[in-house]
Amino acid sequence: MKTAAYAASKAGAQLAPFSIDRREPGENDVVIDVLFCGVCHSDLHQVKDEWGGAKFPMVPGHEIVGRVSKVGGGVKKFAVGNLVGVGCMVDACHGCRQCEQHHEQFCEKGCAYTYNSTEMDRTTPTYGGYSKQVVVTESFVLKVPENLDPAAAAPLLCAGITTWSPLRQWGCKKGDRVGVVGLGGLGHMAVKLAASMGAEVTMLSTSKAKEADAKKLGATGFAVTKDPETFTKLAGHFDLIIDTISAEHDLGAHLGLLRPYGTMVLLGVPPSPAAVHAFSLIGGNKRLAGSLIGGIQETQEMLDYCGQHSIVSDVEVIPVSQVNACYERMLKGDVRYRFVLDLATI
Amino acid sequence: MKTAAYAASKAGAQLAPFSIDRREPGENDVVIDVLFCGVCHSDLHQVKDEWGGAKFPMVPGHEIVGRVSKVGGGVKKFAVGNLVGVGCMVDACHGCRQCEQHHEQFCEKGCAYTYNSTEMDRTTPTYGGYSKQVVVTESFVLKVPENLDPAAAAPLLCAGITTWSPLRQWGCKKGDRVGVVGLGGLGHMAVKLAASMGAEVTMLSTSKAKEADAKKLGATGFAVTKDPETFTKLAGHFDLIIDTISAEHDLGAHLGLLRPYGTMVLLGVPPSPAAVHAFSLIGGNKRLAGSLIGGIQETQEMLDYCGQHSIVSDVEVIPVSQVNACYERMLKGDVRYRFVLDLATI
Repeated sequence: MKTAAYAASKAGAQLAPFSIDRREPGENDVVIDVLFCGVCHSDLHQVKDEWGGAKFPMVPGHEIVGRVSKVGGGVKKFAVGNLVGVGCMVDACHGCRQCEQHHEQFCEKGCAYTYNSTEMDRTTPTYGGYSKQVVVTESFVLKVPENLDPAAAAPLLCAGITTWSPLRQWGCKKGDRVGVVGLGGLGHMAVKLAASMGAEVTMLSTSKAKEADAKKLGATGFAVTKDPETFTKLAGHFDLIIDTISAEHDLGAHLGLLRPYGTMVLLGVPPSPAAVHAFSLIGGNKRLAGSLIGGIQETQEMLDYCGQHSIVSDVEVIPVSQVNACYERMLKGDVRYRFVLDLATI
Repeated sequence: MKTAAYAASKAGAQLAPFSIDRREPGENDVVIDVLFCGVCHSDLHQVKDEWGGAKFPMVPGHEIVGRVSKVGGGVKKFAVGNLVGVGCMVDACHGCRQCEQHHEQFCEKGCAYTYNSTEMDRTTPTYGGYSKQVVVTESFVLKVPENLDPAAAAPLLCAGITTWSPLRQWGCKKGDRVGVVGLGGLGHMAVKLAASMGAEVTMLSTSKAKEADAKKLGATGFAVTKDPETFTKLAGHFDLIIDTISAEHDLGAHLGLLRPYGTMVLLGVPPSPAAVHAFSLIGGNKRLAGSLIGGIQETQEMLDYCGQHSIVSDVEVIPVSQVNACYERMLKGDVRYRFVLDLATI
């Protein structure tokens, strides 16, 4: 099936209209007419091949919401017309210990990412959601609650699950003191989700200018991390810190903000290793953890929860033709808090 | 009460006979005639004031086993003749959130360490177990199972609880793959305890020479960490790594040995911060944690467990007069695996 898309032809190229061939739907496949696709910061990194090994032409996009337009004969969970989503993965081996434990993102054979990757045959390139249609095996398609705005729900598929998973892994609950470091696409979802769980959320930002927004999103506290006093005032304060920053910052200082047995979870990958002194962990049985997106089952749980609590992302919907301009704005931090491409405009 | 002891008069001084005044037992105090006291590596650091702020004269020793010789009128849990132990702490505030949660080592007012510290009055110096008697408030005295050799049980009060606590915090259980980094006083207890819990234990050591010993202690696997192949062969292998090393080593490489959702717990404090790349945690939802001794309740649980499973430390019992020579041997790594002072010789 010929599908209209936007692609980068080589590393760093501007995205331009492109036509891709989607496979004819197999027995277990779901054909999805894409309505909206979020623009994740990782799209920029991959288009520029900043992580190495990028495959071109590249059709980015892994925050996909659309409607089912066709299903294979063996598909059980979905019917034509259903509102559905696709996140960062489109397949995995289904047989390893990680897949069995619903951690497909750590599939021992390597999962198939939604773009800049290959299907499990390790040959067929995958193309993402900056396109009119996607064809995905049923078990990697998510149900999107019909009460959610489909454009604003799109970023849940990556920014939502990436922040939901660590909050669940570390048992965020009513009354917990949660710090969120960085108010961007991830940070704004972390604030909304943690606040909805009853946590007392404090935004930790380099910029005082973000205070009003943070409070609107559900934070009750705000502290500026450029102010050294923050680290004495809030020493030992947090049960959990969700750190969304990809720029260099002092992890040791942030660990000092945790109470004993508290955890700081890293979601962003700064370019260089950070210096961590063992005593900043030992003095308080603290934990420094990482978290990568989430498995399919927990992504569905997150979507169901967001449906029940009417939680979506704050988005700015743009026509696909403006994607290059939106990348420029993202590099300047000029986004509140997620751009979403309207695929009706392709 | 005048009590015979061994003390360092100033930083780096040789230990020499010394007389200290122990308080007359108050209502809740237990007087203990010390039988044995283990020699912990931290004794050496503190005698040399390597951590700063050391108080002299210093009577080290926080791995104390003895018999109750007198009790205050309000003491309920202990009677004259009981075999008891004292670990790294002799008191705490009893009222803060950490004390209420049985994490006295993180008492918000600061616990009273057994030596090189003060009682909770913040004035009276504390003196450790290199002495004929100690007087300790009931709630910081532990019951030592009578079936254990009291000399070999002494190191349980620090080395035992320090390795027990992370194994319990991280749910070590039958079939788990546990790596223990470093075969010293802590490492040998970590191997014994993890093996007793049914884990499949691998010793990770810089020295091939330790293999036979590691296997005798209960390890079924052995790998040399100076061999780069270890880090490819055992990549993604462990559920839990207990890292007992206080020398610089590559934490990132060790994190690569963990399976997804695995944890590495640091017990030793290398002098400089380690470089940790966020991706070594994010790529597998891994955890880097610290752990500091353990609370009084979990120390009692550990002692009860060791009684049921007949677990003690491997020790070399020496007369108190040889303590300086034993420090020299420890600096050369010539100890298998804990020196214990026989207080009958004082």
